Amino acid sequence: MAGDELWYAGIRELGTRFRKRELSPVELTSALLARIERLDPTLNAFVTLTADRALAEAKAAEAALLRGDTRPLLGIPVGYKDIYATRGIRTTGGSALLADWVPDADSTCVTRLQDAGCVMLGKLITHEFAWGIQSPGHRFKPARNPWNVDHIPGGSSSGSGAALASGMCVGALGTDTGGSIRGPASFCGVVGIKPTYGRCSRAGVLTLSWTLDHTGPLARSVEDCAFLLQALAGHDAADPASSPAPVSDYAGALAQPIRGMKIGIARDFFLDGADDAVVSAFETALRTLRDLGADVRDVEIPNIWDAPSFMVIMASEAFAYHERDLRERPELYGDLLRERLMSGALYTGSEYVQAMRLRERLRGEMLDVLRTVDVIATPTSPKPAPTFTQMWDTRVGFPRSNMPPFNLSGLPALALPCGFSSAGLPISLQLAGRPFEEATVLRAGHAYEQATEWHRRRPPV
Amino acid sequence: MAGDELWYAGIRELGTRFRKRELSPVELTSALLARIERLDPTLNAFVTLTADRALAEAKAAEAALLRGDTRPLLGIPVGYKDIYATRGIRTTGGSALLADWVPDADSTCVTRLQDAGCVMLGKLITHEFAWGIQSPGHRFKPARNPWNVDHIPGGSSSGSGAALASGMCVGALGTDTGGSIRGPASFCGVVGIKPTYGRCSRAGVLTLSWTLDHTGPLARSVEDCAFLLQALAGHDAADPASSPAPVSDYAGALAQPIRGMKIGIARDFFLDGADDAVVSAFETALRTLRDLGADVRDVEIPNIWDAPSFMVIMASEAFAYHERDLRERPELYGDLLRERLMSGALYTGSEYVQAMRLRERLRGEMLDVLRTVDVIATPTSPKPAPTFTQMWDTRVGFPRSNMPPFNLSGLPALALPCGFSSAGLPISLQLAGRPFEEATVLRAGHAYEQATEWHRRRPPV
Repeated sequence: MAGDELWYAGIRELGTRFRKRELSPVELTSALLARIERLDPTLNAFVTLTADRALAEAKAAEAALLRGDTRPLLGIPVGYKDIYATRGIRTTGGSALLADWVPDADSTCVTRLQDAGCVMLGKLITHEFAWGIQSPGHRFKPARNPWNVDHIPGGSSSGSGAALASGMCVGALGTDTGGSIRGPASFCGVVGIKPTYGRCSRAGVLTLSWTLDHTGPLARSVEDCAFLLQALAGHDAADPASSPAPVSDYAGALAQPIRGMKIGIARDFFLDGADDAVVSAFETALRTLRDLGADVRDVEIPNIWDAPSFMVIMASEAFAYHERDLRERPELYGDLLRERLMSGALYTGSEYVQAMRLRERLRGEMLDVLRTVDVIATPTSPKPAPTFTQMWDTRVGFPRSNMPPFNLSGLPALALPCGFSSAGLPISLQLAGRPFEEATVLRAGHAYEQATEWHRRRPPV
Repeated sequence: MAGDELWYAGIRELGTRFRKRELSPVELTSALLARIERLDPTLNAFVTLTADRALAEAKAAEAALLRGDTRPLLGIPVGYKDIYATRGIRTTGGSALLADWVPDADSTCVTRLQDAGCVMLGKLITHEFAWGIQSPGHRFKPARNPWNVDHIPGGSSSGSGAALASGMCVGALGTDTGGSIRGPASFCGVVGIKPTYGRCSRAGVLTLSWTLDHTGPLARSVEDCAFLLQALAGHDAADPASSPAPVSDYAGALAQPIRGMKIGIARDFFLDGADDAVVSAFETALRTLRDLGADVRDVEIPNIWDAPSFMVIMASEAFAYHERDLRERPELYGDLLRERLMSGALYTGSEYVQAMRLRERLRGEMLDVLRTVDVIATPTSPKPAPTFTQMWDTRVGFPRSNMPPFNLSGLPALALPCGFSSAGLPISLQLAGRPFEEATVLRAGHAYEQATEWHRRRPPV
C-alpha cells in the first residue's frame, strides 16, 4: 500500500490490512506525518502536530494488534478540532486569547477516541471560537481547500475538512453549531455527521452556543463516520445536555437496503437560491435514491422560513459567553468575529424568547414531517465553496444556509459528496432523520455512497 | 350537615354522605351558591358565577350517584381561576383586554375535572394576566383575604385562595409561575400544590411565562389536593411541555407513614428575612415532622441565591407575550402591571441566556440535594399576608419569596397551613420533592396535617 491507496484508505480496509500484517499502524502514521509535512505548509489544516505522541500511540496500537485486539479504531490516525481540550497539548480555539492554553484534561470525545485505540496526529485548525468565519490577518492562518486553495474549506471545522480531503488523516472531530461539521464536509468533498443534540458529549469542548452546539465526527466515507460515531456516542454525566438514550449499532445498520425508505424533500426552502449545478446534482442524487428503492416525495415545512431565529439564538448565547472578554480585551478578537459577536448585544431577552418559540414550532413541524418520511434530503449548501476574497467581502454576505434548521431542531444530519461544480468544487447532499436515528441517516447515506463514485474523487494536491 | 360542617367538608366525607344519601350534590351546590351570594360581595372571589350550570351539573351528578357511579370527584363543586379557558363562559384573565372573551373550547384541566364529575360554580378572580399584583382602580376588583379583608389573599390565584378559605367551594384550579398557587394557599390558610413542570396540562390556559408556568389544584386539605391532582395529572398532546411520565396513585400514597423520610432544610436562604412568628411556626412544624419519625437535617444549596434570575426569565417571557398589546393598547393594562411588564423590555438576550444558565445550575444543585433527602421543607412565605395599602406602596417592594426556586427547578411543591401570626393571619409550610414525586410530597404534607389542627381553623366570615 502506497501513495493515494494508503493516504485515502478507509477504516475497515486499514483494519483488515493491520490484521493481515500487510500494514502496520506505525507505517501508516509515518506516511501520514510525511504527507502532512509536505502538504500542510500550503493547506494549513494542523495548528499543532503531535508527531512523537502519534508514533508512540501507533507503536502501542501495533503491540495491541499483535495481542489480538479487535477494536475497529485501533491504530487509526485522527485529528482533533482545536476546540476539543487535550491534556498537555495546547488548545487554541483558533483564538489569540487561548494561544497558550494547555488543558489539564481531555474532552470526553477525545478520551473516547483515544480509548478506542485512535492515534492522535495533532490538533486541527478551527475558525476563531468555532464561529464560521476567519478574519483576514488573524493570528492563526486559515486552512485552505484542497480542491482549490483560493477557496475556503468551510468552517468552523476547517482543518478537519481540509485534512481529510487531502489524505492527511483518516478521521477527525468537528463541532457543529450552525453547520460547522457539515459545511467543511460539503466544501471539501468529505463526509460529516452532526448527531442528535445530546448524543455526543460536549464536556471539555469550548462553547459557542449552549443550545445549538453539537460534537461529532468527519471522515471520508459514511462507514468511517459510523465507526467513529460508535465510539463517541453515549451518555456523559459531565455534559448536562447529554442524553441517556441507548446507542444503536451504526456500522451494523449500514448493511440493510433502503428499499421502501421514505425520503422527503422540502424544495421551497432548501433549493431556494441554489446554484444550477447544486440543483442538478441534487436531483440526480434523488434519482439514485429512487433507483435504490427509496420512496422520494415532496414534504412541506411551513415555518422553515423561521430558521433565521437561529442567528438571534446563536448571537445572544455567544455574546453571553464572550461578553467579559469583549469588554476587557477586545483586541484579542479578529475584526470580523468581534463584529459578529457584538451583534449579540443588540438582541433583547424578549427577542431571544420569541426566537426560542419559533424554534420550538419549527422543530415540531420537522418532527411532524418525520412521522410521514424517514429522512429529509437537501443540498447541504446552496453553493460550492466561495473564495477567500468573496468570504472576506462583507458586502457579499452569507448565502442562506440549509444547515441551521437541524441545529435548531437538534435532529441528526449527515453531509456527503454528491457531485462537483464545473470549476471542480465539491457539492454535497444532506440527509437528516428523527432524534437518535443516526443509524437510519447513515444507512441512507451509505446506500447512496455505494451506488456512486463521488467520494472516491481525489483533490489535486 | 349544615353551616360550617357543610361549607368546609372535604371530598372524601362529601362522597361518603352522597352515597349514604345524607346529602345530595344539589343541596351542597345550592348551599354554596347561597354562601357565595352572601359572602362574595365582600370577598370578591368570583368574577363570573355559573349558578344555573352548576345546578344542572349537580343534578346530573345526583343521577349518576343513583346509578352507582363511584368517581371520587362526582358532584364536588369547584371554581376555575379565570385564566383557564371555559367554553361558552367569559374568561377574562383578570384583564380589561379580555373582558369580553368567550372561548369556544375548555382548557384541558377544566375538561379533566368536568369529566371527573366536578360541578363548576364559576370563574375565580385572578390578578391581571396572572402576574401577582392587582393595580388599584383596576377594572376587576381584587379578592380579599377571608382572615382579614384589609389584607391581600395572595396572588395571582387570589380568588381560588379566598373562595376555599371562606367555604365557597371545595376545590379550585390555580396556576403558579412564581408562587401563584402556593402564595394564595399560604396567605389564606389553605392547601395548594404546584406539580412538577409538565405534570398538568397548560393547554387552554393564558400564558405568563412559558418556561415557568405550572397549572395545579388548591383545596382545603392535602387529601383533597391529591384527589384533584389525580384527575388533572397526565400527558396532554396539546401542551408541548407536557410530560409522558406515568401518573402515581396520589390519594393511595397518603396512607403510608413518613417514618424515616429524610427532610432537608436550607435555613440560610429560606429563613432569611422571615418574621419571628414564621420562623417559630416553621421550627414547630419541623418538631412535629421529627415526632412523626422524619429525619430532619440541614442541607446546602450553594447557588440558591441565584434565584433572582427568576425575574429576568419571567419578565423577558411575559414581555415577549405582551409586547404587541403593550405597544398598541397600553391603556388596557393596570398601571402596576404595565410597569412590571415593561421591565421585561430592558433585559438583553444575553442576560436571559445567563439567567437560564444560572437556573440550570440551581436546578442541578437542588436535584443533588434531593439525592440526599426526600423532601425540602421551607416556610412558604417569609411573612404573612400584607395589607392592600402595603401591597400598593411601591416603596415597600416585595419580600424575597421562597417559592420561585421551585418554578426555576420545576420541582413539585406543596403549601399547607402550619400556624398563625399574632394578628391571626395564616402561616404556611412548603414541602418540595423530586421531579414527578408529587406522591412523596403529598404524603409528607398529609402526615403533618393529620398530626396538627391548623387546617381546621376557620376565618371569621
